[in-house]
Amino acid sequence: MSQKSFKISYPSLHPGTDKSHIKFISGSPDLAALFFEGDEAAETRRRFFVTDATVASLECMQSFISKFDDGVCGKDNLLILGSGEPYKTIESVLTIVRAAFDANYSRKDIFIGIGGGVICDITAFAASIYKRGASVQFVPTTLLAMVDASVGGKSGCDFENYKNIIGTFFPATKLFYFPDFVQYLPENQYNSGLAEAFKTALLFDKELYDFFRDNSEKINSRDSKTLEMIINKCVRAKGKIVEEDFTEQGIRATLNLGHTFGHALESLAGLGTITHGAAVAWGIGRAVELAYNMDYCLMAFRDEVFSILKAYGWETEAVPSFVKGGGFSERLITIMRTDKKNISDKIRLILCKAVTDISIEEVDEKLISSVLK
Amino acid sequence: MSQKSFKISYPSLHPGTDKSHIKFISGSPDLAALFFEGDEAAETRRRFFVTDATVASLECMQSFISKFDDGVCGKDNLLILGSGEPYKTIESVLTIVRAAFDANYSRKDIFIGIGGGVICDITAFAASIYKRGASVQFVPTTLLAMVDASVGGKSGCDFENYKNIIGTFFPATKLFYFPDFVQYLPENQYNSGLAEAFKTALLFDKELYDFFRDNSEKINSRDSKTLEMIINKCVRAKGKIVEEDFTEQGIRATLNLGHTFGHALESLAGLGTITHGAAVAWGIGRAVELAYNMDYCLMAFRDEVFSILKAYGWETEAVPSFVKGGGFSERLITIMRTDKKNISDKIRLILCKAVTDISIEEVDEKLISSVLK
Repeated sequence: MSQKSFKISYPSLHPGTDKSHIKFISGSPDLAALFFEGDEAAETRRRFFVTDATVASLECMQSFISKFDDGVCGKDNLLILGSGEPYKTIESVLTIVRAAFDANYSRKDIFIGIGGGVICDITAFAASIYKRGASVQFVPTTLLAMVDASVGGKSGCDFENYKNIIGTFFPATKLFYFPDFVQYLPENQYNSGLAEAFKTALLFDKELYDFFRDNSEKINSRDSKTLEMIINKCVRAKGKIVEEDFTEQGIRATLNLGHTFGHALESLAGLGTITHGAAVAWGIGRAVELAYNMDYCLMAFRDEVFSILKAYGWETEAVPSFVKGGGFSERLITIMRTDKKNISDKIRLILCKAVTDISIEEVDEKLISSVLK
Repeated sequence: MSQKSFKISYPSLHPGTDKSHIKFISGSPDLAALFFEGDEAAETRRRFFVTDATVASLECMQSFISKFDDGVCGKDNLLILGSGEPYKTIESVLTIVRAAFDANYSRKDIFIGIGGGVICDITAFAASIYKRGASVQFVPTTLLAMVDASVGGKSGCDFENYKNIIGTFFPATKLFYFPDFVQYLPENQYNSGLAEAFKTALLFDKELYDFFRDNSEKINSRDSKTLEMIINKCVRAKGKIVEEDFTEQGIRATLNLGHTFGHALESLAGLGTITHGAAVAWGIGRAVELAYNMDYCLMAFRDEVFSILKAYGWETEAVPSFVKGGGFSERLITIMRTDKKNISDKIRLILCKAVTDISIEEVDEKLISSVLK
């Protein structure tokens, strides 16, 4: 065999996806005003809005929803999907693609996800593969989506009971935050979002961590000003990490604190059985317990984290009460081996030595097992 | 409502996808030697090879295929899919994802597509969404894949009888060209690849265009040296365009010469009924006829292109002989309205004024209709 060779280079850039413009909007969420009266009404591109049945039924959404007649308002369309984790599937992604295709949307048009993490993630995934990439914008309506899913361009869906195993990096060009959407959330959804906010504090913001430690009543009662502060701080903190390490080659992986344990628990329980945040909060407890066992953190730190977890009603036991059957640690570790962060056959975990002092390490399965029983 | 706003910026870069390393390898294709004996044998990452039944049954592939025992060779895996356009589906993409996931591949590992355009496109699409992006490499085995599909990072699959309607931009990190694979192709597949090579010549390379015009016998007989020259020139020409305009904001769209007509004909006929190249060659004839009707090109140019098309056995009639039923132009135009290139409700076409003199324009449907009857 004789060989000759050369190289082709490209800018691996999706046009228009190099920036997220972020707006915080106080007051009752009025999407009809936002999209059909304000600056956004001047948008000349077609807009394909995607939301779910739960959001579409909120009272504050009725002025927006009623703009659409059989899913159509002028050049724009609205698609309403089923609600929740069971709809975070490739079928939902393809439902969006099919509807946009049937309405003859071009790749210059915009997909706008209005909803929680599921709607944001699948709308972005659909946009990223639609005719090889249209644009996406979000109006996150849950605390979880506001402080986490909406920021940083991770799109995706579940596949065969594994969380977020397929997807793309595809950031929203615009993000519209209405903190008041949080007032509409059922308690478990609110609590789920708080877990990601607490995780962000533990990782990057000592001031916010202290606030979580000292103000559980104010936070649990959904004080409006408090929520605006928490959301703003979390979006900025996550935005900063994502700017540094968009495709998660390094520091961004620390955002997965509690997630290797948490995702595995969600898969084991059956996706949708417990909230993402509850699983992550339990995972943070496991990660801190593990760090303590490895002599990485002080007992005082472990105890403080556990008392905060309890103040927000999060599980701190090694084996969550709802888990049925034996062999929990073996079953969980089997799932943890498939985690996206792993780069060898070892399990890689985010370990927390103190507030804002984090490392990523491959950990022996025996040590992991010790905090799961 | 009160507002405050800020921005987050990212490098929208997928690590490692900024360059394609290209190797031309003369002589009989020996993939066992390439991947298990040469430089590539030193690869420490796991390799997930994907091919199809047709390629796997080629005599020259047996030394490679026999390395695998039940799809496994050391740390590497091999998946053999069904052959041809009917397999260019999201189900095939998910079959790749599922198999890699079941074998616990990480996002640091490599997917390697060995096959024609279908295998290259779906393997790259699977790699691009697998845990939000692993790497992909190609060994294109058809002339079409060598001169077109393998270069430039367009991944994707068909969806509900529409060509390539979902996908990503995700270039291969390495491309291995064995021109001798072309000797194994059935006549219609060889001829299909030639059509894309001729298109490239018409767009960018007057010398290659003249060669096509003056050497149809040599080309049709698959002369080895001639093929090496054609493949090399086409890969370099396409590589140059792709470097200039990776995500097809401008000049790259000219590569779609003949494709708006051609894709629509493929959809109308049912995907897989005629070869992609035959459809594109027919589309080139229609685009040239249209340019002539619009007084954009000389009769001498039109006649020369038509005589070249005929020399390679390509359809030059307005209505291809296999088309059944009436209303051909209306049916075709309905499909053309959904083309990815369109940015308004008008149909955008690539028009050829002379060799290497190309423009992109929105064309009135009446004018389009005139070359379809």
